[in-house]
Amino acid sequence: MISIQWLPHRGVTAPEGFAAGSARGEIKTAGDDVALVLAAENSTGAAVFTTNQVKAAPVLLSAEHLSKASPCAIVVNAGNANCCTGARGMENARQMASLAARKLKLQPEEVLVCSTGIIGHQLPMEKIENAISQIELGNDDEAVARAFMTTDTVPKFCAASREIDGKTVTVGGQAKGVGMIGPKMAPLAPHATMLSFLTTDAQIERELLQNLLEKAVARSFNSVTVDGDTSTNDTAILLASGASGVQISAENEAQFSPLLEAVCVQLSKKIARDGEGATKLIEIRVAGARSEIDAQKVALTIANSPLVKTAIFGRDPNWGRIAMAAGRAGVAFDPKNLSFSLGNLEMFRDGEPVDFDLARAEAALEDENVLISLDLGEGDSNWTAWTCDFSYDYVKINAEYHT
Amino acid sequence: MISIQWLPHRGVTAPEGFAAGSARGEIKTAGDDVALVLAAENSTGAAVFTTNQVKAAPVLLSAEHLSKASPCAIVVNAGNANCCTGARGMENARQMASLAARKLKLQPEEVLVCSTGIIGHQLPMEKIENAISQIELGNDDEAVARAFMTTDTVPKFCAASREIDGKTVTVGGQAKGVGMIGPKMAPLAPHATMLSFLTTDAQIERELLQNLLEKAVARSFNSVTVDGDTSTNDTAILLASGASGVQISAENEAQFSPLLEAVCVQLSKKIARDGEGATKLIEIRVAGARSEIDAQKVALTIANSPLVKTAIFGRDPNWGRIAMAAGRAGVAFDPKNLSFSLGNLEMFRDGEPVDFDLARAEAALEDENVLISLDLGEGDSNWTAWTCDFSYDYVKINAEYHT
Repeated sequence: MISIQWLPHRGVTAPEGFAAGSARGEIKTAGDDVALVLAAENSTGAAVFTTNQVKAAPVLLSAEHLSKASPCAIVVNAGNANCCTGARGMENARQMASLAARKLKLQPEEVLVCSTGIIGHQLPMEKIENAISQIELGNDDEAVARAFMTTDTVPKFCAASREIDGKTVTVGGQAKGVGMIGPKMAPLAPHATMLSFLTTDAQIERELLQNLLEKAVARSFNSVTVDGDTSTNDTAILLASGASGVQISAENEAQFSPLLEAVCVQLSKKIARDGEGATKLIEIRVAGARSEIDAQKVALTIANSPLVKTAIFGRDPNWGRIAMAAGRAGVAFDPKNLSFSLGNLEMFRDGEPVDFDLARAEAALEDENVLISLDLGEGDSNWTAWTCDFSYDYVKINAEYHT
Repeated sequence: MISIQWLPHRGVTAPEGFAAGSARGEIKTAGDDVALVLAAENSTGAAVFTTNQVKAAPVLLSAEHLSKASPCAIVVNAGNANCCTGARGMENARQMASLAARKLKLQPEEVLVCSTGIIGHQLPMEKIENAISQIELGNDDEAVARAFMTTDTVPKFCAASREIDGKTVTVGGQAKGVGMIGPKMAPLAPHATMLSFLTTDAQIERELLQNLLEKAVARSFNSVTVDGDTSTNDTAILLASGASGVQISAENEAQFSPLLEAVCVQLSKKIARDGEGATKLIEIRVAGARSEIDAQKVALTIANSPLVKTAIFGRDPNWGRIAMAAGRAGVAFDPKNLSFSLGNLEMFRDGEPVDFDLARAEAALEDENVLISLDLGEGDSNWTAWTCDFSYDYVKINAEYHT
């Protein structure tokens, strides 16, 4: 049992050595829409980006910066994705990094840039400049988590601590994104599917930090989906201030990883639960696969199935759709060994339907949290994915979103 | 220019040497739900099946029969998929073939069996037996096309002729399926995504017939999607009676293939247009790809994108979603060479947005048929896919479908 302490109402500034703030640039319709996150001197940073072939300017620029320096600050805007904006879009992303660097007294290469919002419009640079100049750094984590929201209905942030080497190490994080959320099905690939900023006061050298981030992202942000549509702007960033005085290395990595993964999973569940139009959080646990890649493919194919997602919205225990979705995942398995359950209710065992109580199945679907567990009966690997149901409001939100 | 003559209101019995009929077995809520299609003596047959790992009993049985004999008849029921029904399901599929064979004076191995409807319930064999005994064979193609409908709102059938070697050759067909329609993204793989029966009076030996069917299916049924959910029961069957006296071989295959493909594409478009909740038929043409597989992946990823499909339902020319979907297809391309249009309206050229007239774009989306054309600028290969928009009614139909 891992003894993790959750820190209520805290986010990216919960660990020692971080400050953050936000301001309104009038880019989105209401509220703050530009934010900064800053780590103390001598911090290290790591990041992963979307695998979409069409990458937004801030993604291209941040990847360039990551290759030149260790990042220690993030500047983000909501309301405009700065994507499909050509050469001028790249210049604007560069200017955004420079404006943040000047304010924070850093080199532009030490700043990572994120943008989220509508595709195909140039950034309003005057508004961005004005907002950056107004930001006051502090520790209002909720305000900062609100600032990068787009169609999100709630801010998503959390923080947790645990003892490592006799001292307290904290990880904080915030995430946004409730639509255009779909992990690319190249399992374990280093990419994120939304914006997520993670912070820790552990001391971690860059190479290890990047590895830890990639592993945590694979089992969390890379395993959450709303619509399967991988965004052009997805970015996850992890900054480590070192302020706790605890150095993470090969020896104590196994103590730090569960803390980081717990924060990432918590944020991933918040994303799925707040998915566009969602009424339920759905967790899909696949066990008995020949490989983790196989298990992830099956879990995500079920998580992306419109027929499964609409059935759960309709509180219909249509288990045939679960069998169908598992079977179309592109993973070889013998259906004669397939078993699955809804909550605690077994529906299909070793390739044969189980005569379950329909009323109990319908009752299980009344809950806000729905659990689907499968066993492929082929091996020892497992994976968990998160999604939401597919409702009228999903269509409404996305059909009425205006270009 | 290929001179194809369409034969209005004709279907599977339009070619010489076929008879078909249907009857009501009270398996679905209303109308005929069991049907037979019979080819003349000395006919040949070919078939392709779903690649879903969870295959329904009739799919497993039909594949077994195809390996033993040349099929010359089809028995189909709607309302029950006979899938996830274990050993008893296989026995029921066998009995269904035997009942049809006895009536038609054939060997059971010469009969292919198809079922469509709800998953996980045993076939009501008494009803099936009763219906088969009542079927009178004739040429009411519409009645037969209606009999295998499930959530379809219109019967889908057509027929066309052309001259080959101085004689008239006809191809007829019928298809069903408006949900759980999603081609498995293994391009060119021999599988169909719904039930489709094709007939011709050409004379074609089995191996060539199978090749011709696989090629035609790849460019038609394998390229249509409603929800991306590949069914457990998909089957396409082609029967050739030889009654026209025209033998198809390597020499004149190039004259027959476009006729077969035209009928398959026509049926595929009917499927997309009648997709669950659809208000529009969307055609996605991808050109300039490095390979046909690349082109197909991009076309189908756009066709399956919930964000693209909801935008078109909302008449919103949200071209950023087209760029996003193209980029997430898992196909390498340089976005600097990407161009695309909505109808005749160019929106994105060589990686830069085009300043198009929003009113004209919105007008293009008022049409019942929407065309999206992309050029990846990477090579000479192309592919076309068909889909429908994603509406409130899609959610309604699938959330209220009862298990």
